Amino acid sequence: MCFAALEKHWLSDRISGIVPDMEKKIIKKLQQAVGKANLLTSLEECSCYSYDASGQNFMPDAVALPESTAQVAALLRLADEYRFPVIPRGAGSGTTGGSLPVHGGLVIGFSRMHRILEIDPENMIAVVEPGVVTGELQAAVKKHGLMYPPDPASLKFCSIGGNAAECAGGPSAVKYGVTRDYIIGLEVVLPNGEIMRTGVRTEKGVVGYDLTRLFIGSEGTLAIFTKLILRLLPLAEAKATFLLSFSSLAQATGLVAKSLTAGLMPCTLEYMDRTAVQVVRDRLSNSLPEETAALLLVEFDGSKAEVEQQGKLFAEFVQQEDCVVRRAESEEETQELWLARRSIAPACLSLRPHKISEDVVVPRSRIPELVRFVEQLTQELELIILTFGHAGDGNIHVNIMVDKQNEQEYGKGLKAKERLFERVLSMGGTLSGEHGVGITKSPFLSQELDETALSVMRRLKGLFDPHNILNPGKIFPV
Amino acid sequence: MCFAALEKHWLSDRISGIVPDMEKKIIKKLQQAVGKANLLTSLEECSCYSYDASGQNFMPDAVALPESTAQVAALLRLADEYRFPVIPRGAGSGTTGGSLPVHGGLVIGFSRMHRILEIDPENMIAVVEPGVVTGELQAAVKKHGLMYPPDPASLKFCSIGGNAAECAGGPSAVKYGVTRDYIIGLEVVLPNGEIMRTGVRTEKGVVGYDLTRLFIGSEGTLAIFTKLILRLLPLAEAKATFLLSFSSLAQATGLVAKSLTAGLMPCTLEYMDRTAVQVVRDRLSNSLPEETAALLLVEFDGSKAEVEQQGKLFAEFVQQEDCVVRRAESEEETQELWLARRSIAPACLSLRPHKISEDVVVPRSRIPELVRFVEQLTQELELIILTFGHAGDGNIHVNIMVDKQNEQEYGKGLKAKERLFERVLSMGGTLSGEHGVGITKSPFLSQELDETALSVMRRLKGLFDPHNILNPGKIFPV
Repeated sequence: MCFAALEKHWLSDRISGIVPDMEKKIIKKLQQAVGKANLLTSLEECSCYSYDASGQNFMPDAVALPESTAQVAALLRLADEYRFPVIPRGAGSGTTGGSLPVHGGLVIGFSRMHRILEIDPENMIAVVEPGVVTGELQAAVKKHGLMYPPDPASLKFCSIGGNAAECAGGPSAVKYGVTRDYIIGLEVVLPNGEIMRTGVRTEKGVVGYDLTRLFIGSEGTLAIFTKLILRLLPLAEAKATFLLSFSSLAQATGLVAKSLTAGLMPCTLEYMDRTAVQVVRDRLSNSLPEETAALLLVEFDGSKAEVEQQGKLFAEFVQQEDCVVRRAESEEETQELWLARRSIAPACLSLRPHKISEDVVVPRSRIPELVRFVEQLTQELELIILTFGHAGDGNIHVNIMVDKQNEQEYGKGLKAKERLFERVLSMGGTLSGEHGVGITKSPFLSQELDETALSVMRRLKGLFDPHNILNPGKIFPV
Repeated sequence: MCFAALEKHWLSDRISGIVPDMEKKIIKKLQQAVGKANLLTSLEECSCYSYDASGQNFMPDAVALPESTAQVAALLRLADEYRFPVIPRGAGSGTTGGSLPVHGGLVIGFSRMHRILEIDPENMIAVVEPGVVTGELQAAVKKHGLMYPPDPASLKFCSIGGNAAECAGGPSAVKYGVTRDYIIGLEVVLPNGEIMRTGVRTEKGVVGYDLTRLFIGSEGTLAIFTKLILRLLPLAEAKATFLLSFSSLAQATGLVAKSLTAGLMPCTLEYMDRTAVQVVRDRLSNSLPEETAALLLVEFDGSKAEVEQQGKLFAEFVQQEDCVVRRAESEEETQELWLARRSIAPACLSLRPHKISEDVVVPRSRIPELVRFVEQLTQELELIILTFGHAGDGNIHVNIMVDKQNEQEYGKGLKAKERLFERVLSMGGTLSGEHGVGITKSPFLSQELDETALSVMRRLKGLFDPHNILNPGKIFPV
């Protein structure tokens, strides 16, 4: 079966004149590199690595599941020799196609490099392999009274390597920042198979260029992570969670910048519009006011005293607002609110079979303007569009719901995306806060980046990966 | 006078065969680029830009003080055409020689690009020119109830551009991080004179490679900053400052990691050894216990409730320790403690005329080991060596006091530096936490960075600056 797959896919559009014998030879070498049990070549197996959360599909020619840095290096030496594409893949939860083998080639999955190598509580450092599931890392460090803040909605299945490749965020970013802020050192394999260490395992370090942060968010196009050194924080002692229901969208979004400038520092300031609320309404045991037009989920964490004070301040602050305030009374209720929030993205597929999922960012004072604009788009183009997400840092998820089989509707969806991007950039915003560019945003890159920046980035790609082996077809417009 | 200077220095070791006529032509073009009043060419004026806090001295051939990005770009176009070195310079407070014209050439000073272009309190963003003095920025944003946390000891005169070039830290880094964590976007001029924007002006942003952080800490070797977009935080409402005197060094340093793992999160955790205390003792109006072998300066900030609770917890925590605890009773007393701390670096020159000033970092649990090692060095080599600084993040300043005219003593000082570096690296540390490499640490770079990383960094330099125009002779070992 594997050779049938290979004949169809193997590097066909990469290297002309490749012959089946050559393919067999490469397969054999790949098997030698990682062991037979760690190389998947059947169509059935390969197809499990052909999609991600972007809803697109591209078949790899083979999938390697290495168990060590040395194996990853061996794979890349082969790629360098035979010039086939290599696509690193975490859990495939990315929404921009970052882990898809758009030109075929070898997918490297990290599910077998998933060890937490070290937790050093005294220095608040962890060293992990890229396949560690983010939520599992969080649970492991929690046992030591520590926390790893980045919390993408997919944290129960996404992995640290993928988080680092896309610079994942999450609700806690408003207070704690994003993945970039917690990775202080890396071990990577370069496209030619060389192994390199970057950064430090101390809190500070400024020796040489900051390769660590150059690699974070580079979407697997410059190097492959094989080890990550993470900084941790002391676990917050207490938490207070509020749910605010508004009958007016403008009031909800208007509250965001106002509450932050009032000196409140929530660790969560999540917003959901009416449609987002509807799709998860049945997951909440306490019913919401019927006329709910928008929700804010607001959480404070820190020491008990701090949380108490911030909670009190916040309660006073929202008293003047026209909204219904509910404070979670138990851990279960808090979990329920979170589950509802985290379910929006998958649950909205009940509205239409597909979505165009964007994660634009605007200066948070301009969220009301953005949301109003999306409402206009909804009406004008007769589409279902949800807005929800990280209002605290201006990072709003806009899900444009479509049926891709319905050509007209899909066309309108793409039009909506274009108009959204245009507006966001005119507001001083950015096209992506945490999903990355991948393939879904690459056609729009030059709208955000100036020509010089784009040219510098292309040359950086060329410097690290002159033969375009690593994750070809990503980030850069064709 | 200027031509005399030029005949001696002008590009002499850069371009062979350069003739005085050419020099005159370049000077004229430089004058046209920035205006006559913004170009200094006399020896007297140039000599003001020939030194920094590293105590070394190199004469520039000319100094330009541009007033706009366009002028900076014009200067770099000339440098690209005539291939002379360009050395960006903030306030010259760097300690590793980063702003010194080691190969002559044109120093670009930023004292006339010192405007705060924008403070946006709603979105907690500031946009500044590189010459803004860090302390002045802090004062300006404070008026809006905001803070810019990075606080190098030189904050009263150093500038944001230099802070960004070296990725400056400061005492607050233990809680708030370093300069890198507060710069979200840049306008830069590349060595060929092209102007480029990087990053965003929103809290999040992951579109394309992270050029912003690649430039932060690149010590003026890749690009010249002309505008910086900074993120700000809400101003902390309250503060509590403690001074702890110990009769044992080991007890003081041992307390550091212990207090942080106990869940305390100070915004300052500074340490001073006996010698450091001695040089600033007379600046403290309340006398210290005679037998003081080490001090810890510990500060908490945040909301009133939080500071109260952390202060209380801390007081309980240190009760079991064998030390004298004093809490600052007034803002004046707090300021006095800080002034003493910030005066150590200049004041220690009363001990010996010169110092070899290092800012190594070790995992904070290993500070006691580092300090013990330095004590041994002191005895073994019969030198005065002070240790003080940012114990909270393991970033210890080691000042090796010498008389450079005394060849034997200076030799021993350099030996001490070598042995210190060796030990720090063996402990999983780094050679610099906030001063950068410059020229004083470049010979040691390959001890910390692996060969591949060093080669990648050299190639990055070549990509941005193929003619080695920007700050030549820095970072990389010759």
